[in-house]
Amino acid sequence: MRLRNVKNAGDILNDSKYFIKDNYQGNWSKFFKNNYPISLEIGCGKGDFLINMAKTYPHVNFIGIEKYESVLVRAIEKVNNLELTNICFMCLDALELNKYFNREIDTIYLNFSDPWPKKRHAKRRLTSPIFLDIYEQIFKSNPHLFLKTDNLILFAYSLETLSNKDYKFNKVSLDLANENLFNIQTEYETRFSNLGYKINYLEAIKKRV
Amino acid sequence: MRLRNVKNAGDILNDSKYFIKDNYQGNWSKFFKNNYPISLEIGCGKGDFLINMAKTYPHVNFIGIEKYESVLVRAIEKVNNLELTNICFMCLDALELNKYFNREIDTIYLNFSDPWPKKRHAKRRLTSPIFLDIYEQIFKSNPHLFLKTDNLILFAYSLETLSNKDYKFNKVSLDLANENLFNIQTEYETRFSNLGYKINYLEAIKKRV
Repeated sequence: MRLRNVKNAGDILNDSKYFIKDNYQGNWSKFFKNNYPISLEIGCGKGDFLINMAKTYPHVNFIGIEKYESVLVRAIEKVNNLELTNICFMCLDALELNKYFNREIDTIYLNFSDPWPKKRHAKRRLTSPIFLDIYEQIFKSNPHLFLKTDNLILFAYSLETLSNKDYKFNKVSLDLANENLFNIQTEYETRFSNLGYKINYLEAIKKRV
Repeated sequence: MRLRNVKNAGDILNDSKYFIKDNYQGNWSKFFKNNYPISLEIGCGKGDFLINMAKTYPHVNFIGIEKYESVLVRAIEKVNNLELTNICFMCLDALELNKYFNREIDTIYLNFSDPWPKKRHAKRRLTSPIFLDIYEQIFKSNPHLFLKTDNLILFAYSLETLSNKDYKFNKVSLDLANENLFNIQTEYETRFSNLGYKINYLEAIKKRV
């Protein structure tokens, strides 16, 4: 995603009730004041997907993780205009997730993550074994992960790494727009689907032993 | 594949030393007079892939399985002109494989299998759980399977069924022509690759417990 410097991004974030700086590790249910399942989107970008999910599923709590303040500020500006109690956002590197969550997460969404297409950068992909091991530490029970991407290299790689970490694929599609599945699109997805690009999709579950 | 009726197909098959009618279940090493690994191609069509594999890998034995005599006769006509000792062909329905092999197979190749794209026909696909259970009975040790297809529905389905039977993916590609992999093409593959269609590929291995 192209990054533009946003003036006062820090102020806009800090002024929003939807932006979380404190560490609620082990206390997320208290934070949300309920025991609903918690879903993370890692790399939530400008937030459209997660905000629509939060509207659609009021009995699920959603946390958007984004590395860049200048991107996250766009999500915060959108959600500031709404009255939602089941969504918040954090500015974090995914490598630090295990410092902020402790077996509290039910599902993880990865939407159009940076593909890092060069082989020597593969470990930076959000489905590399390094990241899968971190996710393992924050999932409450059986790890459950959803991934969408138009990038063939990232998708093929994710099928390899996930299967080798004992995930099973509940659903795979190489052309999501032609499936009969309920699907909330990201900004990027809408744009690329309209241009005729095929979207790859998977739902993966791992049974903990 | 379009089927044309071939006159005397039965005679051409029966006259060839490469065409096997007898049942060598449990005795395939004796048949080949060596202990080299044995690879099956299920749905070998007109045989180009398997014949080229047999030429390339003289220390592997190859058996082509094809349901239709009128297709298999084309493979037999090609191989009749060659002097190869590590290849033969059988006219069989894949549902009967466990009557002809008994824990003797090292690898299985599925190339451009009939996709049976309608959901109600899914169990006829050569990667349906029904077929995977049959293959399980004929694999010598760890099941090891290669699949190529241009069909998105068959490929996505195979990723689901294989992962749910505990296969791990060693290698997945959604654009085989752009991979740095040694690849012997089928007739169909050459034609479709040249037309710009992307070929999907996977190598799957299951560790027996």
